[in-house]
Amino acid sequence: MVLAACSGGADSLALAGALAFVAPRLGIAAGAVTIDHGLQEGSGARADAVVRTLADLGLDPVGSVAVTVGTQGGMENAARDARYAALDDAALRLGASAVLLGHTLNDQAETVLLGLARGSGARSLSGMPPEFTRRAVAPSGRRDVSDVRYLRPLLELDRTTTRRACLAMGLEPWDDPHNDDPAYTRVRVRSDALPALEKALGPGVTEALARTARMLREDADVLDDLATRAYADLDAPEQGYAVAVRLDGLAELPRAVRTRVLRTAAVKAGSPPGTLAAVHVDAVDRLVTAWHGQRHVDLPGGLRACRRYGKLLFGPV
Amino acid sequence: MVLAACSGGADSLALAGALAFVAPRLGIAAGAVTIDHGLQEGSGARADAVVRTLADLGLDPVGSVAVTVGTQGGMENAARDARYAALDDAALRLGASAVLLGHTLNDQAETVLLGLARGSGARSLSGMPPEFTRRAVAPSGRRDVSDVRYLRPLLELDRTTTRRACLAMGLEPWDDPHNDDPAYTRVRVRSDALPALEKALGPGVTEALARTARMLREDADVLDDLATRAYADLDAPEQGYAVAVRLDGLAELPRAVRTRVLRTAAVKAGSPPGTLAAVHVDAVDRLVTAWHGQRHVDLPGGLRACRRYGKLLFGPV
Repeated sequence: MVLAACSGGADSLALAGALAFVAPRLGIAAGAVTIDHGLQEGSGARADAVVRTLADLGLDPVGSVAVTVGTQGGMENAARDARYAALDDAALRLGASAVLLGHTLNDQAETVLLGLARGSGARSLSGMPPEFTRRAVAPSGRRDVSDVRYLRPLLELDRTTTRRACLAMGLEPWDDPHNDDPAYTRVRVRSDALPALEKALGPGVTEALARTARMLREDADVLDDLATRAYADLDAPEQGYAVAVRLDGLAELPRAVRTRVLRTAAVKAGSPPGTLAAVHVDAVDRLVTAWHGQRHVDLPGGLRACRRYGKLLFGPV
Repeated sequence: MVLAACSGGADSLALAGALAFVAPRLGIAAGAVTIDHGLQEGSGARADAVVRTLADLGLDPVGSVAVTVGTQGGMENAARDARYAALDDAALRLGASAVLLGHTLNDQAETVLLGLARGSGARSLSGMPPEFTRRAVAPSGRRDVSDVRYLRPLLELDRTTTRRACLAMGLEPWDDPHNDDPAYTRVRVRSDALPALEKALGPGVTEALARTARMLREDADVLDDLATRAYADLDAPEQGYAVAVRLDGLAELPRAVRTRVLRTAAVKAGSPPGTLAAVHVDAVDRLVTAWHGQRHVDLPGGLRACRRYGKLLFGPV
């Protein structure tokens, strides 16, 4: 059984409609779930309406899950975390082999531009993967951990196509007012930045951004793999330190691999990946390649990196 | 002796001023050259004025070179080609060990966005390198080829800094009206696309783009190096074909490396690198990884790729 996640918007409604068409022809059971974030007046009634539409499409099982959105890391992030946790839970509860998400080419292009603002290299520009897995704690009463597989089958289609698909299938999409609220960075990227880029660079920017994402993800996979192997080679535990890496081997690596090894080392030592920025990694890199007596480099998570015993050492401050 | 290339604009004027300040303190001889592209009314008089300013700064030798701009590949490209040829020539004639260019952080950010429109991966997003070498034919009468080294010392400074530097040094920059002409893609990127990105994503986009360029260049260097070595391993000449590569080895490579090997192979076989696009490389890749009887793939330059004898073969149509 596969499960479509459907907000009622044009993209995920087209996804649900396509799944309802395709699944019986492939002999696959297919259901759908909508998440009620409880953030807008009448969201419960809206969720019920979406569930009726999903049932009318012939999907089974269908249902809505109400979640409570916290405030951790901003509302967008909190809503996203709550949504995925509920989808994990629904997938495990219903025994779904995959959850389908309705992200399109346009979402991908927007994500690349949002990653640009971070300016932290290939991985931050590689957008959303077409498939990924989340480790999830099985629902209430059970303690084991399972993998939930997510797929994005519409990632190469644009938003115009999903709208037309809804029209062709007689489905009426719901336009979330949040999607027009310029308080959200993503909305500003969609409504202002991307059109300005198209105007300056010519048509095809959305496709170019999506293609860039795919190519840079493939690049990052290879480089991360090289870094993982280099880290395993250079790992040299030292009493009293969380992580220790041999300096001689580090210095010989090309910079693109070395900075990835240093990031891996810092994260293994306990630095939070979301806070550890390129500027921190660069400072650690200078301990390796431009050392002129710097005593140490402070890192997020109460960590510190220093040179000693021919090694680069990471430990608590 | 090093030579600054100076248009008279704020960036390269600040560069010339800084060079005139620094060079005697480092005991280096320093000159400057301005190029008269002959594209605007009064450009000769302008070049003379720039030369006087450069001489007043104490740079020696100074001079202007008039070039003839063709139309090949559009006016911007033709002007650029003529300019670099004249700079090569001046460097070789004067025996300069390096030519300094005044490109700034802002130019770098614009170049990354221009590369985005091509959507052809890390290399097209890696902007301008801080240093590079051109092979140039020595000036009139001599037949040998020499390397000319170019440096971009201002690549981490922004345009506001060069303007302020000019003001502080009492230098009056010339504002080229071409820099405000929205007929140029680069001008539209500067005046519309970048401000829209800053507005949507917040300040720091210019710096993020420049940092992205540096990181992706380092990535591309490693991946190109892997591809060069893989190509050398898999190269398996076949009578009647310009290039032949072993299929078994190709299929085992990660996609990021394999597509680079395929691009290298196609270019070696004679496909023009500027015309060979990601879409062509992807089609050749499908001969390797998704072969279902495709007979061949046509490539720019009157070439064709096909599978035979356990190899991927590139030859004339």
